Amino acid sequence: MTQITREDCAKLDAADPLAPFRDEFVLPDGVIYLDGNSLGALPKAAPGRVADLIEREWGRDLVKSWNTAGWWDKPRTLGAKLAPLVGAAPHEVVVGDGTSANLFKAVIAALRLAPDRRVVVGETGNFPTDLYITQGAVELMGATERRVDPDGPELAEALAAGDVAAVLLSHVDYRTGALRDMAGITRMVHDSGALMIWDLCHSVGAVPIELSAWGADFAVGCTYKYLNAGPGAPAFSYVAERHHATARQPLSGWHGHARPFDFTGDYVPVDTASRFLSGSQPLVADAALEASLDLFARVDMRRVREKSVAMTEMFIDLTAPAGLGLVTPRDAERRGSQVALSHPDPEAGYPTVQALIARGVIGDFRAPDVLRFGFTPLYLRYVDVFDAATALVEVVRTGEWRDPRFAERAQVT
Amino acid sequence: MTQITREDCAKLDAADPLAPFRDEFVLPDGVIYLDGNSLGALPKAAPGRVADLIEREWGRDLVKSWNTAGWWDKPRTLGAKLAPLVGAAPHEVVVGDGTSANLFKAVIAALRLAPDRRVVVGETGNFPTDLYITQGAVELMGATERRVDPDGPELAEALAAGDVAAVLLSHVDYRTGALRDMAGITRMVHDSGALMIWDLCHSVGAVPIELSAWGADFAVGCTYKYLNAGPGAPAFSYVAERHHATARQPLSGWHGHARPFDFTGDYVPVDTASRFLSGSQPLVADAALEASLDLFARVDMRRVREKSVAMTEMFIDLTAPAGLGLVTPRDAERRGSQVALSHPDPEAGYPTVQALIARGVIGDFRAPDVLRFGFTPLYLRYVDVFDAATALVEVVRTGEWRDPRFAERAQVT
Repeated sequence: MTQITREDCAKLDAADPLAPFRDEFVLPDGVIYLDGNSLGALPKAAPGRVADLIEREWGRDLVKSWNTAGWWDKPRTLGAKLAPLVGAAPHEVVVGDGTSANLFKAVIAALRLAPDRRVVVGETGNFPTDLYITQGAVELMGATERRVDPDGPELAEALAAGDVAAVLLSHVDYRTGALRDMAGITRMVHDSGALMIWDLCHSVGAVPIELSAWGADFAVGCTYKYLNAGPGAPAFSYVAERHHATARQPLSGWHGHARPFDFTGDYVPVDTASRFLSGSQPLVADAALEASLDLFARVDMRRVREKSVAMTEMFIDLTAPAGLGLVTPRDAERRGSQVALSHPDPEAGYPTVQALIARGVIGDFRAPDVLRFGFTPLYLRYVDVFDAATALVEVVRTGEWRDPRFAERAQVT
Repeated sequence: MTQITREDCAKLDAADPLAPFRDEFVLPDGVIYLDGNSLGALPKAAPGRVADLIEREWGRDLVKSWNTAGWWDKPRTLGAKLAPLVGAAPHEVVVGDGTSANLFKAVIAALRLAPDRRVVVGETGNFPTDLYITQGAVELMGATERRVDPDGPELAEALAAGDVAAVLLSHVDYRTGALRDMAGITRMVHDSGALMIWDLCHSVGAVPIELSAWGADFAVGCTYKYLNAGPGAPAFSYVAERHHATARQPLSGWHGHARPFDFTGDYVPVDTASRFLSGSQPLVADAALEASLDLFARVDMRRVREKSVAMTEMFIDLTAPAGLGLVTPRDAERRGSQVALSHPDPEAGYPTVQALIARGVIGDFRAPDVLRFGFTPLYLRYVDVFDAATALVEVVRTGEWRDPRFAERAQVT
């Protein structure tokens, strides 16, 4: 195999149909940002959209904006804008609350739809909040949780017992970057009589998703990673239409009511995905999300996936001389938009990431030993991939990471 | 009684120690805003603070702001800034999620602290989401809800049965504006062996509150009414220190974990109010709240209360000639920062409010028959109260509200 050169990368950039999108993001000088899988970069349209909400809708029009600026329906209008990115009908997605709360709603709704099954299957290596929230939900429901490695035979074994109400998996593993076969797994879960909940946090905006076609029952995702909606931006819930009249989530606030402005004393959920809403949502944060979703309306997700695969492939090839372990699947079909590497010396991972950050290449570290690099096709160039890979190889080869200043741990890793 | 004149009001404004705060808010020309109890006005400092978060902390510093801009600790630093307004220690308040979710957490935590008591007492006329959320929580817990009128003998009667785990009441009734005796009610509830949860949505920022001194166990409040943090801004939870090691809420996300960055599989709640946190919070919205709380740090809440009482008193007196029913308690000690009136003709209430809005006096209507007027001492003048009262008397006397265009209902009332 002939190694790709920086010049080759520049040619790829010149021919890249997604290249113009880079100019729609704020990217600091001297930085190659490979952490968009943690916090997406700022769309240039966001500050203006937020300022307009604050100064015109809130400041000038005040409370009347609940009607005139569409505030009341924002969870639905944003849901409809997000729906194409997850292969859902517009009325199957609502935006609101955080990922943790929405996971809680989905797990309890699923347990209620299968009252004679008392097990929720989760995955051993899932992002902790998925595990913790499932723990909290099953405890309330007198159910139990069983954790498996979904990339091996354990899932099928767990389902065979016939007592599984629901399975909650991440579409892309936050640590390894493994991309799961949503269609195949959902089919297997349904064949066993269980419901399927997908966590899309690490795939939405980076990987084509077809929730309806692939049969998902519920899904939850955040918007601050590949969707670039800003730190802690509101999350979303997908509720398949077939569950709109029957799925009952417990955070039964007034925004999920069939007739919220009757102000009656009894909770009657509306027969749409809006029954997964609870209370009022932070509209200032919603405005940044809207700016980002309006940008995604012009994006062809197939091209995003093609470029993402090309970039992760390239990064894996170019960093091979560093001699790190490849944690992410080698098969591009089974890989999300990130590359995870492990250093043979368990003490070296964290300072290696810090040494790269000092060079302007921002990735992150996930305990116990994973160096994570996220690839966002909308604002990264192939030359960035080349430069980042070159930097990583140099940091490892030269031992630059051994500088004591790179060992100092920040509060949030 | 000699009727107060507009000139008298102008003199009161000239002598008002809170008057300078008016200049710190954006107030549209030609508007008298008496709906700050629904959505507070925009503090002038908010747009800049939000823009700085977006452009510098997010856009330039990206993911590193989780450490350098204090994002991770924001629920606690904002909680500490809010704590003085509710009479709590800094570590007893955390900011995050919405009112509905936080009510859910408090009700379930209270039920778990009293496992041999299975009743939650709520109030018949509470804001619907309080009722709906309680319904959702008791259903999950195999408990029941009993609703009473807390302003009469029913609460004591309900407590006498000895089966009440918790009582959830609003400090100020959203419709009538009645202000409850927090200290006395909390004592009575505790004497019966139950826990006390206060909803502060309609009192925080308008009425002095002493949660610790008055013995509250849990409290929840929103920040977008008298706290002026913007539409749907994040809510807060108060957890009395004595419950920090034992209160268990079910939305057990990673932000409530004792060691969140160990990324372990088992949920172990931290022994502080942070155990009431779940997931990441919308920091763009938090920035507007921070601007508002920094303003409140300079506010003497006793002066706010004095001016609020003077204003509601004045509005009641000046609107008496309109012949409307006074729904709000006549006794200022039992009144929040709002005046609620009812029109003898049940069809007249809504169009009367619309006719006032057409004149630039913004109040709101709450079904079935209440005209609500909120008084925000930080940005209202006594002359505003005079002009608003004069307008209301004219609209009622002249029958101006009968114009058909005022009968058209908006989606959000």
